[in-house]
Amino acid sequence: MRFAFPLMAIGLEVAMIALFGIFVQYETDQNLSQKSNSTSVDLDTSLDLYPFFRDVHVMIFAGFGFLMTFLKKYGFSSVGINFLIAALGLQWGTITQGILHSHGEKFHIGIKNMINADFSTATVLISFGAVLGKTSPVQMLIMTILEIAAFAGNEYLVVEIFSASDIGASMTIHAFGAYFGLAVAGVLYRSGLRKGHPKEESVYHSDLFAMIGTLFLWIFWPSFNSAIAEPGDKQHRAIMNTYFSLAACVVTAYACSSLLEHQGKLNIVHIQNATLAGGVAMGTCADMNIPPYFSLILGSLAGIVSVFGFKFLTPFFTTKLRIHDTCGVHNLHGLPGVIGGLASIVAIAMEIPITSTTKQAAALGSSIIIAIVGGLITGP
Amino acid sequence: MRFAFPLMAIGLEVAMIALFGIFVQYETDQNLSQKSNSTSVDLDTSLDLYPFFRDVHVMIFAGFGFLMTFLKKYGFSSVGINFLIAALGLQWGTITQGILHSHGEKFHIGIKNMINADFSTATVLISFGAVLGKTSPVQMLIMTILEIAAFAGNEYLVVEIFSASDIGASMTIHAFGAYFGLAVAGVLYRSGLRKGHPKEESVYHSDLFAMIGTLFLWIFWPSFNSAIAEPGDKQHRAIMNTYFSLAACVVTAYACSSLLEHQGKLNIVHIQNATLAGGVAMGTCADMNIPPYFSLILGSLAGIVSVFGFKFLTPFFTTKLRIHDTCGVHNLHGLPGVIGGLASIVAIAMEIPITSTTKQAAALGSSIIIAIVGGLITGP
Amino acid sequence: MRFAFPLMAIGLEVAMIALFGIFVQYETDQNLSQKSNSTSVDLDTSLDLYPFFRDVHVMIFAGFGFLMTFLKKYGFSSVGINFLIAALGLQWGTITQGILHSHGEKFHIGIKNMINADFSTATVLISFGAVLGKTSPVQMLIMTILEIAAFAGNEYLVVEIFSASDIGASMTIHAFGAYFGLAVAGVLYRSGLRKGHPKEESVYHSDLFAMIGTLFLWIFWPSFNSAIAEPGDKQHRAIMNTYFSLAACVVTAYACSSLLEHQGKLNIVHIQNATLAGGVAMGTCADMNIPPYFSLILGSLAGIVSVFGFKFLTPFFTTKLRIHDTCGVHNLHGLPGVIGGLASIVAIAMEIPITSTTKQAAALGSSIIIAIVGGLITGP
Repeated sequence: MRFAFPLMAIGLEVAMIALFGIFVQYETDQNLSQKSNSTSVDLDTSLDLYPFFRDVHVMIFAGFGFLMTFLKKYGFSSVGINFLIAALGLQWGTITQGILHSHGEKFHIGIKNMINADFSTATVLISFGAVLGKTSPVQMLIMTILEIAAFAGNEYLVVEIFSASDIGASMTIHAFGAYFGLAVAGVLYRSGLRKGHPKEESVYHSDLFAMIGTLFLWIFWPSFNSAIAEPGDKQHRAIMNTYFSLAACVVTAYACSSLLEHQGKLNIVHIQNATLAGGVAMGTCADMNIPPYFSLILGSLAGIVSVFGFKFLTPFFTTKLRIHDTCGVHNLHGLPGVIGGLASIVAIAMEIPITSTTKQAAALGSSIIIAIVGGLITGP
Repeated sequence: MRFAFPLMAIGLEVAMIALFGIFVQYETDQNLSQKSNSTSVDLDTSLDLYPFFRDVHVMIFAGFGFLMTFLKKYGFSSVGINFLIAALGLQWGTITQGILHSHGEKFHIGIKNMINADFSTATVLISFGAVLGKTSPVQMLIMTILEIAAFAGNEYLVVEIFSASDIGASMTIHAFGAYFGLAVAGVLYRSGLRKGHPKEESVYHSDLFAMIGTLFLWIFWPSFNSAIAEPGDKQHRAIMNTYFSLAACVVTAYACSSLLEHQGKLNIVHIQNATLAGGVAMGTCADMNIPPYFSLILGSLAGIVSVFGFKFLTPFFTTKLRIHDTCGVHNLHGLPGVIGGLASIVAIAMEIPITSTTKQAAALGSSIIIAIVGGLITGP
Repeated sequence: MRFAFPLMAIGLEVAMIALFGIFVQYETDQNLSQKSNSTSVDLDTSLDLYPFFRDVHVMIFAGFGFLMTFLKKYGFSSVGINFLIAALGLQWGTITQGILHSHGEKFHIGIKNMINADFSTATVLISFGAVLGKTSPVQMLIMTILEIAAFAGNEYLVVEIFSASDIGASMTIHAFGAYFGLAVAGVLYRSGLRKGHPKEESVYHSDLFAMIGTLFLWIFWPSFNSAIAEPGDKQHRAIMNTYFSLAACVVTAYACSSLLEHQGKLNIVHIQNATLAGGVAMGTCADMNIPPYFSLILGSLAGIVSVFGFKFLTPFFTTKLRIHDTCGVHNLHGLPGVIGGLASIVAIAMEIPITSTTKQAAALGSSIIIAIVGGLITGP
């Protein structure tokens, strides 16, 4: 057991090198011009997407990493294991998504694949928030491999089979990651967790470190929701909707936190997490043709629901459902992700032929079901 | 009183949703092509300004937020209230600036409006630095609404009526925010503050957190001063002037700090604040046709003046003028803002017809007078 | 001695102002169109390079600054002196590189010069890591002036005389900075250092601050290696190679750390430093036409070599070679820089006429020799 972690890590890296050797080539101007359909030329070789990639990259490595440092005993292992998961996951995500979309052929990669690779790691990082303190590094390596494979499968289903729209990934990343993590946490439940984890405390400075994570996620979220949107009006709208949704979410999250806490004080956990729910909930609808005030309403709702979730749902999960959700990912990613999926169904129902509503509902359903089944399988 | 904060916050958010519903629409390719003057087409729908927006966004939320964490007892409330003010302020700034420029009609918004909305919150965040520890969250909500309205009025006066130039907003944001905050601080003065606030101490780690704020402000300041500059030579110049001004400012601020402190030690407060004065002072002149060494001189002066201000002026303000300036915003934003305004008058006097000098002087005057009057009204 | 630091800093800033007055002008559309060779027009006046500049700027000021905060007693002086060195160094780097390339004539500067100015400061910041805790601020000012002059000379030799390729500067920045610093550290060696520096300890929170530095360096490294690459395929490849090399490096660094440490625990110093070795090693080859799996192999090797270096080489250096390397820059910048140079020789040997191999070898040799000689001269 002493060498389980280093040997598994080395073994996985060797496997990645072999898979890259077999399947992956870089996109170049030359191989692009050889392709018959020249529609995607602008996207793949130019650096238009590079600024979006960097923002997503900051969110994955600095944002998620520091967000989980709030527990005083887990600060370093949070940011450290986050780093490892994401670095391994992006290689594996490049492979799984590439192979699925190329149907097993060699494939070319560009900046867009880097964005999608980073996205795929986000699911594991979200799930990690639910199981933090309950798993070993070896278990996290296994979970990274299994969850990203399940994510790539679900994403293929949603995009290629259902043709559903989920530009900011409320369903395929946030809801998926949360329910996968909750399923694993349910399997790993031990009765000792009912009275609260002994190390589950924050101190003053660990809360400030977590705020670094919160702020960098919050600041760059408009790029997350618009990174792979169609350039032009849609991408423009995805940026602005997310910007306003997040702003409204902060105001209602602060208001609800003060409303529910003793003597009207603000709860630090709500400020660190619920303020981000507006970005999650806006994901699916971000590029749709909705008026600006709709994004303010959606963000406001997400902030309210998330704070109520932290206050009432998390204790209920721990004591009644026997699911111990360390960072409360259900309130930040799970519920707001579902709200985002439902909002898209409403938005489409009001404008576009009924079939699409079904597609969106199918996407929401598959994201949750595959996540839970995957998590239950991964858990043991 | 227990429910004053949550109810006011919810009420303000509902008001924002209503105002957005009435006034705000997104800019699209379609409504842009309908406009007769097609000069601004490139700016509004393309994403050319998006990288500048993101840098400003980092400065507002991470930069200002962490800069004020240096007080060990206020660390979390600084970054927390900063977050709330900015999130509410950007919605209100979008509305006030939009209505003023559209003369009360419906208006379309794009990335440039997001930059201006972020800018408008900067004034309140600067004023917050002067009143930190003396105000409640409810008072900060009121101040946000009043100050941004006053800012939008002054900005309209400066740009539309005076036709003055203030590209990096030395006058309309920095001097305005500082003098507004000082006026409020003067009104809120209690004699107990004369001997220093009991909680006004920093500890080792709180100073490192504040350095995060300093560095992210310093790094992205060239984008702040050039974000809304005319593309081409002017924007290019605004970036470079600010880059060099800030570099020179660091060197002179360190030198003066060592000169004035006991045994030649460096004072942490100077390093955190005075190193940024070069960015403030460069604001108004950033895009003007000045030689590179001029920006080095202006930055050097700003660093010197700012350190001397912290050493001699802040104690004088507290004991004699009965104005307690918690973070020393007068030395970082007030004085360097005035220097920036004066520098622009000198620069223009040497090159351009005399009328412009008057315009710049009017802009500087109105920024300070409206700020002080506004602050005195807001205070009680 | 009391006034040595402030007077020297003021004196250097006055000298910079004078040199800028004599030599430096801004690039404008007008002076560009006057030039006969219009090939570089796109690069110099447009803002295409500005996003790359900002990423490099974050790395220099926030990345390097926080990376060295891990020592609990040096946290503030690390980030503070880093700030001063970089601010002075970028002015001096602009001058030295400009004068060398213009052969002593007046020269025009643009965004690319800002990137190169930031690059030149990186060498001093790397060397600073080796001498941290052993030098005074006055000594650091002197070292900044001497080392950047030596760097500019070596860079001129490598690029203009040898025509070697070192796009991500494995040799000219990383190896150069490391060996210069080691040479200075060797000169400054005192026998007391053999049993370890008394202040050389980290605490929990100082390690989290250092992680901020690690992550921002890691995240933006693809921009560092591609900033001055030829736009198009080469720049695209430099980004992707660095992205994958760094990801592989993280996995192998964690694996080796666990392998070598007591009870398989991860060593924080390895996580903070060795995870970045993949970026250093990828530098020289980043834009070359190599397959993706090659960058994974190179990154994997760099991670392994760096961890072994920290474990076995640093103690050997301290006790046997009488060189005390405070931050272990030899393991992060020295060895991986040499690996990067050697990898480029191998890559070229397999594809391009033999003369180039010699050029690369000459570049690697000159970077190390000039660095060591420069450091030995600067030391006393």
